[in-house]
Amino acid sequence: MNTEKLRSETPGCAHVTHFNNAGSALMPQPVIDAQQNYLNYEINQGGYEAVDHFREQLNETYQRVAQLINADATEIALLESATTAWVKAFFSLTLKAGDRIVTAKAEYATNYINYLHLEKSQQVSIEVVPNDESGQISVAALEKLLEADQDKTIKLISITHIPTNGGLVNPAEEVGKLAKKYGVLFLLDACQSVGQMPIDVQKIGCDMLSATGRKYLRAPRGTGFLYIRKSLLETIEPREIDMFAAEWTSTDTYKLRDDARKFEYYEYNPANRMGLSAAVQYALDLGLDNIWSRIQHLGEILRTRLAEIPNVTVHDLGQVKGGIVSFGVQGIKTEFIKQKLREEGINVSLIIASGTLLDMQDRSLDHLVRASVHYYNTEAEIDQLCGVIKKIILVHTRIEHS
Amino acid sequence: MNTEKLRSETPGCAHVTHFNNAGSALMPQPVIDAQQNYLNYEINQGGYEAVDHFREQLNETYQRVAQLINADATEIALLESATTAWVKAFFSLTLKAGDRIVTAKAEYATNYINYLHLEKSQQVSIEVVPNDESGQISVAALEKLLEADQDKTIKLISITHIPTNGGLVNPAEEVGKLAKKYGVLFLLDACQSVGQMPIDVQKIGCDMLSATGRKYLRAPRGTGFLYIRKSLLETIEPREIDMFAAEWTSTDTYKLRDDARKFEYYEYNPANRMGLSAAVQYALDLGLDNIWSRIQHLGEILRTRLAEIPNVTVHDLGQVKGGIVSFGVQGIKTEFIKQKLREEGINVSLIIASGTLLDMQDRSLDHLVRASVHYYNTEAEIDQLCGVIKKIILVHTRIEHS
Repeated sequence: MNTEKLRSETPGCAHVTHFNNAGSALMPQPVIDAQQNYLNYEINQGGYEAVDHFREQLNETYQRVAQLINADATEIALLESATTAWVKAFFSLTLKAGDRIVTAKAEYATNYINYLHLEKSQQVSIEVVPNDESGQISVAALEKLLEADQDKTIKLISITHIPTNGGLVNPAEEVGKLAKKYGVLFLLDACQSVGQMPIDVQKIGCDMLSATGRKYLRAPRGTGFLYIRKSLLETIEPREIDMFAAEWTSTDTYKLRDDARKFEYYEYNPANRMGLSAAVQYALDLGLDNIWSRIQHLGEILRTRLAEIPNVTVHDLGQVKGGIVSFGVQGIKTEFIKQKLREEGINVSLIIASGTLLDMQDRSLDHLVRASVHYYNTEAEIDQLCGVIKKIILVHTRIEHS
Repeated sequence: MNTEKLRSETPGCAHVTHFNNAGSALMPQPVIDAQQNYLNYEINQGGYEAVDHFREQLNETYQRVAQLINADATEIALLESATTAWVKAFFSLTLKAGDRIVTAKAEYATNYINYLHLEKSQQVSIEVVPNDESGQISVAALEKLLEADQDKTIKLISITHIPTNGGLVNPAEEVGKLAKKYGVLFLLDACQSVGQMPIDVQKIGCDMLSATGRKYLRAPRGTGFLYIRKSLLETIEPREIDMFAAEWTSTDTYKLRDDARKFEYYEYNPANRMGLSAAVQYALDLGLDNIWSRIQHLGEILRTRLAEIPNVTVHDLGQVKGGIVSFGVQGIKTEFIKQKLREEGINVSLIIASGTLLDMQDRSLDHLVRASVHYYNTEAEIDQLCGVIKKIILVHTRIEHS
């Protein structure tokens, strides 16, 4: 990987040291250009006219996204966020009283809140699989749970691939094998993993997968996608339908589309979609294996260097770790660290307990700093980050002691 | 209104004759600038960092939208489209078997499809109020229906303010008075009316209102908003919730927001929101009364001139008419007309029966051309449009006869 070239293609690299890739990554020039190019036409020619003009390229987005995760283009719905995608998938399943949802410890707040919502409104119940000793979902415990389910009340396995609060990569493939073996639907929240590592829905064996554009894919904000396996598409319907998803065919009837686009609405922002398309192509051109190696390499360096700083504790779990690094500094508020880093042009974000409550409670954690690397980060940037953190600790200790 | 200035502030006016404002209007420079300014910062500094930097301006959008429709900022949710807004409002109402929804003849396909969806899944029923002699919803017939509803099974009046397929403006205020009198919830689809005419939710008396940015407001695509009256907000919940709408407070509990933003998700495109905010301010600065007068004036001129052309029939209904003009040309396919106009740099769009099926079937209409004026259009442009249509008819007739 030619880091220098990649950085020169990323305008933001000249301005900031960006370790907030798990929040929203810096867009590369081809993404910016694709978006701007579309916007220019739209500004001068009109909104519908631009869609007509760019129809082929807009449609190509489905093929590219499908290629990214080894799916078919008809299995892809392009949506405004990973949340929109996840929610549309989850609520299209008609879970009933007594049905059980199985999830993992590090589940994302949005997902868990909707489980609770359904628990309250539909009397479904939630089973949380414990972690194994490495901190990932225990595959053995999951199998035990599925094995014991004589009445087949477990209707869904729904987990986050890479949680928002750390380096952990959950063993999606092994979960997928069990889902298949026991005939349970598998919904994977791949918000942090798509664009960061190779994702193959055939290998993983998930039935549904949700993802965002703005994080590791480096696409514009307000973009995301949903994958739904063809066999499942035939049996599920979105809860809300618009005139793009269905045609009003007679006074009393409408005809729903067959493909995953029945989960879309007519209206979207096409300039953003062009950006998403360019971002996916950019990732494909670099190669997801290359991207993943580089991110894992940098993640490990950052973890090691941070752990060497006195008073800093790195909290990442898992057998396999990605680019998200979570840490705390003894006696210093995370908000203060974030602000001081930002003053030095270094971007990080914060982890709050309520984002992944079960996991954070289990580990008695409340607030952490999240520094997330992408392939365009450098070792020099890692040194810079660690240097500033050392300085913050030093100044803070001095003030404490004065 | 200084048309010349308004046109000079609209880059698209130098390139096209835009009569597709009911599809997507041309963005003015302040909207483009607001979007670009945000994007530039985001590209160079990062996605989350840009939100931090522009937090105040982003929040100001709620105040501006509230001012536009005379609501409170806490009653506004900013969403990705009018469809998203409408659907979120509609499905937050817990309609049950036997409940009735009252709507009008010119109802929009998306809305009607969802009534049918609920009819099928929840056994609610749909009542369509006939038109009066002018073609608008018959207020007398609506009152008769409400009066006869001894068992109070009518739970919702849901109509489109300005239908997608013509000049008609439905009498929202009179409908609102009846909704109040009979204690029925009133959902107004204001997709085509917001930005085109003064909208005052207090005067109209609607409980919910959905709108888009891209049409008469001249905002970026992928923007829209939902208004929900404070008193109603206290009793309804969104069907899907994310971690922005609710906080995960303990293993088994979450706390939903109180304001209308509980209908939003965390993720959105902030650059587009900045564009929406600028667009609303632009409309407020011009004055909605001024905008409405000018649009009605141009609409009437276009209708009159088109009607003078042999073989052209204008199909607009209603007592009060707005900027959407619908017409057909005898013996010439609408797709052909649209294409020929586009070749001359004139943008129009097409009306298909399935978009407003009940109304189109009633009038035995299948396809129409839609030319929609905005305040920045000119009489000269209307002449140009009519001139090209005459030419199309002439050439077509010659070919037919040769």
